[in-house]
Order: sequence, then C-alpha cells, then structure tokens
Amino acid sequence: MSEKSLRIGVIGAGRIGIVHSGSIADTPNATVAYVCDAIADSAEKLATKYGAKHTTNVDDLFTSGDVDAIIVGSPTSTHVDLISRAIDAGIHVLCEKPVDLDIKRANSIKDKVANSKTNVSIAFNHRYDPSFAQAHARFKAGEIGKLEQLILTSRDPAPPPGAYIAVSGGIFRDQAIHDFDIARFFVSEILEVSTFASNVFSDEIKAEGDYDSALTILRGSKGELVSVINSRHSAYGYDQRVEAFGDKGMLQVSNMTPTTVTAYTSGATETRDGYLAFFLERYAASYRKELALFIESIQTGKQLNPTYDDGCKALEIADAATESAKTGKVVTLK
Amino acid sequence: MSEKSLRIGVIGAGRIGIVHSGSIADTPNATVAYVCDAIADSAEKLATKYGAKHTTNVDDLFTSGDVDAIIVGSPTSTHVDLISRAIDAGIHVLCEKPVDLDIKRANSIKDKVANSKTNVSIAFNHRYDPSFAQAHARFKAGEIGKLEQLILTSRDPAPPPGAYIAVSGGIFRDQAIHDFDIARFFVSEILEVSTFASNVFSDEIKAEGDYDSALTILRGSKGELVSVINSRHSAYGYDQRVEAFGDKGMLQVSNMTPTTVTAYTSGATETRDGYLAFFLERYAASYRKELALFIESIQTGKQLNPTYDDGCKALEIADAATESAKTGKVVTLK
Amino acid sequence: MSEKSLRIGVIGAGRIGIVHSGSIADTPNATVAYVCDAIADSAEKLATKYGAKHTTNVDDLFTSGDVDAIIVGSPTSTHVDLISRAIDAGIHVLCEKPVDLDIKRANSIKDKVANSKTNVSIAFNHRYDPSFAQAHARFKAGEIGKLEQLILTSRDPAPPPGAYIAVSGGIFRDQAIHDFDIARFFVSEILEVSTFASNVFSDEIKAEGDYDSALTILRGSKGELVSVINSRHSAYGYDQRVEAFGDKGMLQVSNMTPTTVTAYTSGATETRDGYLAFFLERYAASYRKELALFIESIQTGKQLNPTYDDGCKALEIADAATESAKTGKVVTLK
Amino acid sequence: MSEKSLRIGVIGAGRIGIVHSGSIADTPNATVAYVCDAIADSAEKLATKYGAKHTTNVDDLFTSGDVDAIIVGSPTSTHVDLISRAIDAGIHVLCEKPVDLDIKRANSIKDKVANSKTNVSIAFNHRYDPSFAQAHARFKAGEIGKLEQLILTSRDPAPPPGAYIAVSGGIFRDQAIHDFDIARFFVSEILEVSTFASNVFSDEIKAEGDYDSALTILRGSKGELVSVINSRHSAYGYDQRVEAFGDKGMLQVSNMTPTTVTAYTSGATETRDGYLAFFLERYAASYRKELALFIESIQTGKQLNPTYDDGCKALEIADAATESAKTGKVVTLK
Repeated sequence: MSEKSLRIGVIGAGRIGIVHSGSIADTPNATVAYVCDAIADSAEKLATKYGAKHTTNVDDLFTSGDVDAIIVGSPTSTHVDLISRAIDAGIHVLCEKPVDLDIKRANSIKDKVANSKTNVSIAFNHRYDPSFAQAHARFKAGEIGKLEQLILTSRDPAPPPGAYIAVSGGIFRDQAIHDFDIARFFVSEILEVSTFASNVFSDEIKAEGDYDSALTILRGSKGELVSVINSRHSAYGYDQRVEAFGDKGMLQVSNMTPTTVTAYTSGATETRDGYLAFFLERYAASYRKELALFIESIQTGKQLNPTYDDGCKALEIADAATESAKTGKVVTLK
Repeated sequence: MSEKSLRIGVIGAGRIGIVHSGSIADTPNATVAYVCDAIADSAEKLATKYGAKHTTNVDDLFTSGDVDAIIVGSPTSTHVDLISRAIDAGIHVLCEKPVDLDIKRANSIKDKVANSKTNVSIAFNHRYDPSFAQAHARFKAGEIGKLEQLILTSRDPAPPPGAYIAVSGGIFRDQAIHDFDIARFFVSEILEVSTFASNVFSDEIKAEGDYDSALTILRGSKGELVSVINSRHSAYGYDQRVEAFGDKGMLQVSNMTPTTVTAYTSGATETRDGYLAFFLERYAASYRKELALFIESIQTGKQLNPTYDDGCKALEIADAATESAKTGKVVTLK
Repeated sequence: MSEKSLRIGVIGAGRIGIVHSGSIADTPNATVAYVCDAIADSAEKLATKYGAKHTTNVDDLFTSGDVDAIIVGSPTSTHVDLISRAIDAGIHVLCEKPVDLDIKRANSIKDKVANSKTNVSIAFNHRYDPSFAQAHARFKAGEIGKLEQLILTSRDPAPPPGAYIAVSGGIFRDQAIHDFDIARFFVSEILEVSTFASNVFSDEIKAEGDYDSALTILRGSKGELVSVINSRHSAYGYDQRVEAFGDKGMLQVSNMTPTTVTAYTSGATETRDGYLAFFLERYAASYRKELALFIESIQTGKQLNPTYDDGCKALEIADAATESAKTGKVVTLK
Repeated sequence: MSEKSLRIGVIGAGRIGIVHSGSIADTPNATVAYVCDAIADSAEKLATKYGAKHTTNVDDLFTSGDVDAIIVGSPTSTHVDLISRAIDAGIHVLCEKPVDLDIKRANSIKDKVANSKTNVSIAFNHRYDPSFAQAHARFKAGEIGKLEQLILTSRDPAPPPGAYIAVSGGIFRDQAIHDFDIARFFVSEILEVSTFASNVFSDEIKAEGDYDSALTILRGSKGELVSVINSRHSAYGYDQRVEAFGDKGMLQVSNMTPTTVTAYTSGATETRDGYLAFFLERYAASYRKELALFIESIQTGKQLNPTYDDGCKALEIADAATESAKTGKVVTLK
C-alpha cells in the first residue's frame, strides 16, 4: 500500500459495496480504507477482508482524515446528504443511482455540486458495459449514421422483495432509470415522455402502488424516438438489450450466456444456456470499469463518469414516466 | 379446369393481383376467370397468362356470371363500394387492406357485411406467415403462459414513391395497420393508443403531412402492453419481427435470409446475407396460405380469414395512432 | 400444352419421381408424358395426376415416340442400361445417383455417353441447393481466397430400412456420394482417400456388412484437405452443412428451420425449431433447380448439370472410401 | 502473506509465466516466490511486480528452500529434467505441454513420476475452458447419450515465427496436441490415427519440414470417431470449436466474441465482432482454473489436473499423426 494510494471509504456493505471493494482491492494505488454500514457485523466483515477500518457511524468517514473518496451504496434517502457532506469535506464521491427519489431535493444541491472541487460521479454503470460501450462508440464513429430509433429492453429475472419495492421509488426511478440514462447516452436531449404501465403478475407490487410492467416512449430533440421496455420478471432470465437504428444501419447488443455451448436435441436446435443471472454477473465488467474511471477522474481531474446532472436528468425522465403512467397523459420535460 | 372450379375475378393487375393470380393457378379447383384493371394492357397481359377474360370495366365482373369470387387489389377508395357490390351480386370477396381510409365509410356497410351470404375477408396476410402463425399457435397453446408484452418491429426497406404516400392514408393506415392487426391477433382488445411520430429522413413524406418514423404503444384489456416500431426505411433491408413475452417465456420471430450462408472475415464474423427484399418475397408463403384459406372458407362456409370487422378495428387503431401522433395525446378507443 | 413442350417420361414413381413430376407440371413448355413403374398402381396414380400415359414396361417409353427425355428414378441396377437405351433412342436423360454400384459397369458406357447426341445428366442435386450454390459461387468469386479446407457434414435423421441398406451399395455409395460430389464441386481433383468407419448404433446395418458412421478425409491436388462427416442417424434431425475455409475467410452453410421462431424459457434460450425433416424438404428448391437446368440444357445444348463423368468420379471416391474403411489403408485414386 | 501460503517458483518469464504469476497473485494462500528466466531482465521484471526473488539459475529454485511448487514454462527440452529434479526436491510441478518432443525421453521418467510424493500436472488448459468443461460435463451427465463423433476445430490466427516452428516439434506436437488431449478428455482410448497434412500457405513452415494445415481422424476403442481440423492461420481469427455428437443429441462449443454487439448493414446482417485474439485471451479463464486446481491438488492430495501420463499419451498421438502425415499410412497406437 503506497502512500499515494487513494483511500476509499465504502458506505453500505451490501452487494454493491462488496463488488466495489473487490474492484478496489484489484486496483493498484487504491485501498479500501473504511467500511460503514448500519449493521456493524456487515461493516466489520467487509472491512476485515480488506484490512480496512469499520464503523456504523458515517461521520467517521468524514472526520477521520483516513478517506480521500467515498462510494455511496447506502439507501437512496441518504444520497444527497452524503454527497453534500463529501463536498464539504473535500472528499470525492461515486454515488449509486438514483440521486434521490425527490427531484427537488436532488436539485437543491445542484449548484453546490457544480462548484465542487472534488469529483462527484453517479453510478450509471450500464454505460461501461463492454457491449453497450462498444455499440455507443461505433454509433458515435458514424457506423449507423444518424440515430433514428433506440429500443431498450430491460427485464429483471424476478421482482425484488416487497420491502424493497416499498422504498424503491417505483419501477421507473429504480429499474427504468438505467434505461433512461442509456437513452440520454445515445440521444442528447429528451423532450417528451409517454408511458403505459401495468400490473400483470405481482399483487405485491400492485399493493405498493407500483407497476410490474411498462412501455415508455421518449422523443428526442432531433426527432429520435426511444422505446423503453420494462418488466420486473423474465422466465428466461435477465434480459438487457439495446437496438440502435440509424439511417445507415443498426447495432444490437444481445444477452450474455456464461458459455458458448449450444445444444441440439429432437425438435429443439441451437439452444443456448440460460443468461447470466442478474446485474452483478451481467454487469461485472462494467462495475470494474466504472470504478477505474472514477479513480482516473480523480487522478486526472477530468469528469469521466456520468455527472450529478446526468443523475438529475435521468430522474426527471423517471418522474415524467411515473406521471404519464398515472395520468394517462403525455408529459413534456421542461 | 373442372366445372366445380371456383372462378375468381382479380380486380387490380398490380403486384398483389399478379401474386394472387399465380396462387390461383397453382390451386386445384380454382381459376383466374377475369382480370380487371384501369390500364387495359395490364389487365390483358395478366389475363392472357392464365387464359382469363379481361376488362377495364369492373361492372363486367359483377354482371357476366363468370365470376364466383373477387380479389380486390384496386385502390383503397374503391374497396367499400366493390365489397358492397360483391355482396349484392352474391360474389365472395377477399379485399386488400385497408378497408378504407375513412372509418365512417368503412362502418357504413358493417351491417350489410354482417348479413352477407357470401364470404367477405380482409387480406391481413401477415397472420399466415409460417413464422408469425407458429409463434401465435405456440402462444395459444400456452408455451409462454399469459401474454404480457408484445413487441412488433416493422421497417420497410425504402419509402414508397411520393405519389403513393399522398393517397396512402399515412404511415399508420398504410404500413402500421398490418402491425395493428397482428397486435389484435395476439391481444384480444386494444383500449388505448399513444404514438410519437417523426420526420427524420424524408422531406417528401414530410411534404405530404405524413411521418417517416413512429413508435406506438397500445394497452390491451388484460393489461397487455404492445410496442409497435415503424420506419419507412431500413439500410439493412425489410425488417419484420415479433417478440411475444409471457410469464412463462418468450417467442421471437426474426428476419429471413435467402440462404443459410454465413461469412467470416477479418473482424466480421458470422455475417448473414441481406434479408429477403420486401413483402412480396418475405410474405410469399403467407399470400399463398391466405388465398388457400379464402377458397376453403367458401367451400366450407367457415370464416377462416380476418373479417371485415377485423379490417375496421385495425383501421380504428390506425386512426387513433394518427390522432395521437398529431395531437400529442393518448387516445382511448371507444 | 404447346406442341413444343418437352415430353418427359418418369421412370420410377417413388418419392423422387413424384417430386420431379410436380416440378415438370410447374414448368412452362414441359409435360409429364409417361410414367413407368414396376408397380402398376403407382405408375397409374402418378400418371393420372398429370394426365400422362402409364406403363409397367419401360420399353414403351423408348418406342412410343411420346417421350423426348426421361428421368431415371428406378433402382440403381437399372441406371446404366436405361442411360444406354436412352442414348440409342435419341432421348435425353437425367439419372439419379449413383450411376451404378460397379464402377466397371459404369465405365463401360463412358465412351458412348461422351459421344451421345442427347443430354446425359446425373442428379447430384445438392449442387443446386440455394445455400450450397451461393457458398460455391462466392468462393469462386474469390471471397475466401484460395480454398484450403472443406468440411462437409451429412447426417441422416434416421437410417433407411434394412431392405434398402442391403441393396444400397453401402453408406459411401449411397449417402456419402453426395458429399463426394460436393467435394469435387469445390476441389477440382481428389488424389487420396482415408476413411474410418464404425458400427455404433445399428445392428441391422452391421448385419448387412455396412457402416452406420464414418469419417473420411480427402486430399486435393492443390493441397486442399476435405473432411466428410457421415452418420446414418441424428437425434436433432437432418444435418447438412458445408464449411469452406480459405486463406481470406470462411463460408459456412448451416441447417434450415421451417420458421424463424426462437424460444426462450428458463435455462434454455435462443432455441430454434427442429430442422427440415429430410432430403425432400431440405432440398426441395434444389430439385426444382436441377430439373429447370436439365430442361435448359436440352433447349440450349449446353451441359448445365453434373455429367456422367461426374457420376463416375464420385463413385470412384465412394469405392475408395469403402476400400479404406475395410482395409484400414489410405487409398490413392488413379 | 500467511505462513501457510504456497510458495511458487515460476520458471520462464514469458507469456505463460506472466499469466500464471497474475493468477497466483489473485489466489489467497499462494505467492510468487521465485522467478527464473535465462534472460535476467525478464526474470527481474516479473519478480519485482510480485515481490519475488529472481534468478537466471534454475538450481536456486531447487536448493533455496523458498519454493514449494514450480510452474514450468521454459523451453520444451528442459521439461523432463525439471520435472525429475522437482520430484527429487519434493517440489510440486505444473509443466507446460508438451512433456517433451521425444516420447522415449518422456517415458523414461514415467515410473519416477508414478512414485512421486509430490504433484506432477501437465498444463492441458483447454480442459478448463468454461465452455469446453461444460460441454464435457453435460456429455458425461448423459445429455447426448453415447458419444459417436467428436469434431475438433483448431485454427491459429497466424503462424508462429519460423524460429519457433524450428523447435516446436511440428504442428502435431505443438498445436494439435491440445486437440488430441481434448479427444482423450471425451474418448477414453484412441486406437488408430490417420492424417493428411499440407503446405498450402507458408513457405517458411514448409522449409522447416513442417505442415501448415492438417486433417486427422482418430478411432476410439468404442467405435467413436474423432476429426481434428488444424490450420496455422485463420483470416477471421482464432478458431476453437468442439462438436460432440451422440445418439441422443449434439453439443457444440462455438467461438467467443469480446462483446455481444451485432451489426446490420446493407447486404450484411447479424455480423458479430472478430473473435478473441489468441489463446491468452480465449483461454484466460481456463488458465486461472488450471492454477486453482493445481493448488487445490496440492492442498487435498488429489490429482485434479491432467497427469504426466496424459501428457505422454497425447504426445503418442501427436507422434502417430506426424508419422501418418509423412508416410501416408494409418498408424495403430500400441
């Protein structure tokens, strides 16, 4: 551990915290310095693995002087406050999506973030998936000409527990927000949103006033049309696809299987495996890339990840989709 | 040619008329008896090929006593009148889509059609495509459980001439109406329509007040959500896909290549051919099946093709999509 | 039926005879004139369908003056004699493979065929399969550069009846001979043959002294290496593939499914249908093309199908493979 | 670094040594303890990265007492001697393939290896590729029934330098030996070998008396037939495929692309990326698995990797293929 090593505090010792801690450990010149979690055992367990300090009191990360940057994987309601405190403490921050469930609260620190001397990044990791990233790069390089239509499919293998649904902000702020960010990755400005949402399989989700299925269409400022297809379940596994249609061609990102084995039996040919189980497996490479870029951002002073503003804009689209689904009206973004 | 052979009059000696005439000639117990076209040469040429009579005056088909059934492939504005006259003359009719561009006019003969003693069928041939039909049959057999989402992609290789656009009724009544019929093939009742349409590549289409691109979402009465993706061009060829997503699995229909040849070169692997050029090639099998079912309908007295009512309902969705695209509002079907 | 119509006699009213008769009926300027089969009922049934004469005595076809060309689909042992008589009678002939099971007998009329004024073609129809033909054409056009390796996979869905095996000439003269012809289609001259054959599943085939499985390697005169993979059964259906590997790339022909439907369920994704059942379905297009070229050959005086010599050369390779399988030695072709 | 950590000496600081050193560093309870290479700079560079000692004198690894196990990635001619010395020193050894180019020399220490108290493993890493391993596991679980045919395709992206060819032992002992080991992974006992080899593109390889292309067929003791397809170049990239054909179905392993992006342009649809470049990329996961199993072997006292005997048997097949290619005769293994 060199003196120049970036000392990272991990807030939230859940799935994401564990993934990022592993990535940090694999990164030269970065160290898991502190782990904070409301559950002391979780914090200790993760901290011990990487020789880090641990605490249940997030104040320790801001005051100890042991932390150069934090990764925020704690509940959404804590995000805005932690970002704000990180800026005050001169600490860099990579914060999970969404920024907040309340766009007003998110917007309340926009200026502060804009003037921050430290790096503030929002963890829309899908942008770093090697396939999504390559499709985007080839689009930007002109391979499909002018983008006309973008079709994004995002279906989870199974719905989250009801307790999570209750605090998730709903399918649009929790799940579809990744797709809205990818929409903004390809289409510079989104003007209008129309959403049809349904409750077709989960009474538990319905009981929370949320939807289990949704189709959203977005209109971009250059006439681009975006279709976002969401479901909270999928019998055949995690389904994450992109179709970018331009006047010169089309690029698609299809799903990933763990192997390249194909089976042939009576009446069923060319059968592939089930897909990679869920986001931790499917986006394993993108989590590593996300962290690497965050560290590089700090080292170079360049913003390489999605910005706080990106986080707010994706949330605005999610809000508009929620409103459209509820009111049955097309919503115009300001 | 046996005495019992069904004598078919073909109205319109264009592409569709030619296709159906060929299918008739390949069908035992059916004969091309008469060909009518406003262009005398076209009528004569097609008639001669099959040893049929020809005329430029459609009255001849209704009064000659030489015709048991007609296939209507003439301009849309003639459809309602020809169907009405066929019913009066005791002649069966297979009419191209759309029924009419004016739903009121289409509805005006609804009762007459309902009481007709002869068969009236509307030529939504996509239902007979072997792949679409198999996906539908497997869905109906329960393979994917309850249908939750239906994604229909329909992109033409290139836009039709401006002159055709001008009288086409627009992208929704002309192109998307096939997809709206397929939506109704899978989803029993459509309640709501929301459409975003764009002019992204064709000034000629724009000049006609029509759109070259559109995304439409439909809501079914059981919570099913349908996405219809349309474009008037496609660099990689005619793109006709179906994705039926249910709670137990998914069925997709992908595009057809003329061969199964795959190429591998430096940096580009597993490359397939270009797709079958356009609807005459892609739906060749479905045209034959459509005609066979029409003849079987007459022989058995059963309605085996889409009905006049199906024609009207698809038109209502097309009207709603047109209205939604223009007003920016969600449209509820009555 | 015009006076100029080519009057074709079909010898053998079995599967192949039926297929070719249907193709003739669909062809302008060609007519099924006569059907001959040892079983009178079979001959009559097929003849009646197309308004042809029928007989159990093949002499009638040569003496009646009603026949311009014959299609020979009768047992292999009759082929050489029928070809010889057709030449004598000034009748064109398209003969099923193999020419004969005895290369000496086949060679005995080589000179006669070479001097024939009528067309003599051997029905290696795989060359006309749209996918095989396109792969070959693209190879000839230089797309993969110089051919270095050719991998041919040919597995039947299920073995033929024992009675057929007994007279088939064995797996190499009956099944693999198609692949040996395709090898010669791509590789001009074959020099050496080495074959390993096995009896792994069929006692019935073993009892006939034949093999149910085989791998053969061939050496071409320009260093090309060919692998021929044969089996008399295949759990997943008829398997007919080509892989042409050159110094600039590779072309593959894969199997054909009846539709483009793909299924996705738990643990099994991207599953295609079973393949087209057997040769009549898989090679339907190639049978039509074969016949069309035979008719065109007669009309233009050009040899457009494989020649009698092609038939003999494929048989020589089949003989060499049989010898290699039995002796365990590499066999050099003369 | 715990006291129980397995201290590994890496002999050969080339590509393989670097890969294994990285894997060791990622493994808990294992350490790169020593690096030996004839080129002092190479040894030092790799050693420094992992805090290991370095030397140009391999004696140091056997005498220092700092090494519990060695990984042998030095030239083939050193393998037998190093394995022998490791056994004498009570050091475990994972040795690169081939064991030696001379089967007699390889066999000379067979008894010694059989009686060794330390683990001796041969690095046939293809067995650990997730796709190869899964296909094998599913075959062993009965998914395809009894194995009848095995088709192995192995084409390098480009030939190695002439200097390497000169000492490589030839295409069969250097490249195809991996396929021969995979053949033995699926087929218990190989009885016969027939090989056709060619020089179709490389004068340099020809000048060394070696071949650039080869087809080999193998016969297994239960009638299984194996086809091994080799080339020293491939325009479309590294080609590594397996096809296991049984009486109940077929399993294929296809090639790996870096992403799941597919492109569609005019006349070229469904185009995938170029394949993973070469063995270090394609078999990255299998190298890690190989090392993990080697360490687990030592910890558990179980032989989990291919044995020295496996190394000798694959070499015997390679020798037979070489002899068959040169003599034009089928070779029977003793």
